[in-house]
Amino acid sequence: MWSITIDEVEAIAIGAGILGTGGGGSPYLGMLRMQDMLRHGYQVNVIDIDDVADDALVTEVGMMGAPTVGIEKMPGGDEPLWAIEALESYIGRPIDAIACAEVGGGNSIEPLIAGALTGKPVVDGDAMGRAFPELQMSTHLIAGVKPTPGVLVDEKNNRVLFSHITDANTLERFARDVCVQMGCTAMLVTTLMTGKQIKATSVPRTLTLAKRVGEAVLRARRTKESHTQAVLDVTGGSELFAGKLVDVQRKTTGGFARGELVCEGLGVYRGDWLHIAFQNENLVAWRGGRDTRDTVVACVPDLICLLETETGEPITTEQLRYGLRVTVLGIPCTDQFRTPVALKVVGPAAFGYPDVTYIPMPKTPGIGIA
Amino acid sequence: MWSITIDEVEAIAIGAGILGTGGGGSPYLGMLRMQDMLRHGYQVNVIDIDDVADDALVTEVGMMGAPTVGIEKMPGGDEPLWAIEALESYIGRPIDAIACAEVGGGNSIEPLIAGALTGKPVVDGDAMGRAFPELQMSTHLIAGVKPTPGVLVDEKNNRVLFSHITDANTLERFARDVCVQMGCTAMLVTTLMTGKQIKATSVPRTLTLAKRVGEAVLRARRTKESHTQAVLDVTGGSELFAGKLVDVQRKTTGGFARGELVCEGLGVYRGDWLHIAFQNENLVAWRGGRDTRDTVVACVPDLICLLETETGEPITTEQLRYGLRVTVLGIPCTDQFRTPVALKVVGPAAFGYPDVTYIPMPKTPGIGIA
Repeated sequence: MWSITIDEVEAIAIGAGILGTGGGGSPYLGMLRMQDMLRHGYQVNVIDIDDVADDALVTEVGMMGAPTVGIEKMPGGDEPLWAIEALESYIGRPIDAIACAEVGGGNSIEPLIAGALTGKPVVDGDAMGRAFPELQMSTHLIAGVKPTPGVLVDEKNNRVLFSHITDANTLERFARDVCVQMGCTAMLVTTLMTGKQIKATSVPRTLTLAKRVGEAVLRARRTKESHTQAVLDVTGGSELFAGKLVDVQRKTTGGFARGELVCEGLGVYRGDWLHIAFQNENLVAWRGGRDTRDTVVACVPDLICLLETETGEPITTEQLRYGLRVTVLGIPCTDQFRTPVALKVVGPAAFGYPDVTYIPMPKTPGIGIA
Repeated sequence: MWSITIDEVEAIAIGAGILGTGGGGSPYLGMLRMQDMLRHGYQVNVIDIDDVADDALVTEVGMMGAPTVGIEKMPGGDEPLWAIEALESYIGRPIDAIACAEVGGGNSIEPLIAGALTGKPVVDGDAMGRAFPELQMSTHLIAGVKPTPGVLVDEKNNRVLFSHITDANTLERFARDVCVQMGCTAMLVTTLMTGKQIKATSVPRTLTLAKRVGEAVLRARRTKESHTQAVLDVTGGSELFAGKLVDVQRKTTGGFARGELVCEGLGVYRGDWLHIAFQNENLVAWRGGRDTRDTVVACVPDLICLLETETGEPITTEQLRYGLRVTVLGIPCTDQFRTPVALKVVGPAAFGYPDVTYIPMPKTPGIGIA
């Protein structure tokens, strides 16, 4: 068990921003809120995943919706409390611990806020080892954990309880539409699990990983070393590209931020272009000409991460704009997403790219996302 | 208390079809199901609204969605049972009686099926004295009854529980979108009330009224008398038009069947045309030329009802087609919809016709919808 500090919140926000591969929502607002809560006496205890009791009851907490809206539409603040209380009242017993649905972006901080508000410990692990746009893209759900009951809550304390839904894809469709009606962002508390289930099906210690990635960036800033190398030392993977954003097409549609960016190469990449398609998160990266996609260099479920070249700061989908200097990293995903069953849910075809073949990025044993 | 017979189901289906003003879903499938259940030993007890105990717990049962879909997408059959059990489990106590949300169309039969499946009595009354397309258009909700908790259930037993929603319009938006995701029709059980509340805010004895309207039509068929006059003797109101449908524009959109029909006058109406706009239910009727709407002759919340001229059979929105010979009746609505507060919810402006002024149809005391 470890109690999170104000500095660690900053490190987690940076690290989770990078692991978020563009999505998970901006961690900035959550970071400010969490740091302010810690200053005012709130406390968050993170427990190692191995320390969760087999019969403990755990649920996931995260924001659903379009990150482009999340930076404009303020939360009420008590949504995690309302949602967890609604779920506890429905199941008739208290929840013992909170888990992170996706360690990427702002959704790494939301469970911490929920932990602070409810006094419940937060499990060090998540269901993606990154961020993904749709809720069925979860190691728990792919492994067969039931998606319901779950609660969707908005800033007006409107509460919709999905008491029984046949499968995770149907829950995604139902909840997404309610989320859009709630104004395109809402707090989702779902995937109720026993300690035994969460230990068997989580990506372990990803809060710690996000913290280590963030600390590496902060250290590189101080020592003027390469942020890129500092991140890769912790995550594994490799640099894919570096250059300047010359085009961003983005629209907020169906509860998602969808679009494409074009990056013109600089330095050793001069004369080349990188195209990235995204749905909240970066999905596929192609090398090619200004207007042509020639070769896939990385794709889901592996991570395609954009860092501001100057500072190592992660760049989320909603922050993309012409002229930004970016370094693009490819980071190997959790092994749990590399099985044929999982690839049906999180592989390129699941995102509408049936012609893209997933070739797993090489992993360094003991390094990066487990 | 009265126990419904097979013949009475037929009469209710016809009467409710007329009171449905085009909507509420076709009563045909529900009628066959209910009659089959009665043949197989099921029983439905209807209780007079005055006989409901003050502290009884009552909830409404009805189908939500587009009637155009309802005639193609079969229900599973047990939806009312699943929904009521889900609600009882959520509130932690049994529901004592079932009420009708709208006496129009198929939604007059659904509460009877729910009563047969659960063994609970059905209250003789409803929240509209007709059919309306959106759930906030209810005498209970207009009078301040809370819209939640409510449950939406589909034929796969997917259950979505609206545990707390700030207001009825928001519930309509949320539930409508989930309903669309459920395939555009779903069973909604909502508006939980005490006996005291339901007695104070219902349109009373509308199941009896539907039965009497249907019996009047059946009697007129046997005696070869005028169906139109037989209906008007029971409901009040007047004949607005008679002729042949020469144009129907209809699309199923946003969970509704929306459109417009044009009727060319026959007999005394020759040389005139009637235009009717509808959203599941008939909303506004204009006299005019083939392509012009000149004078409003009736509008919501009063009832605009289409009968097949030959048989007196009600014509629902999804059955409209070129060539049908129809008689159009105008029937005065419940007094509860004629207040300024109610007209904001059910008047022409609420349906997108701010330029149409509602002029209440004259009522005959003691006749028709109370």
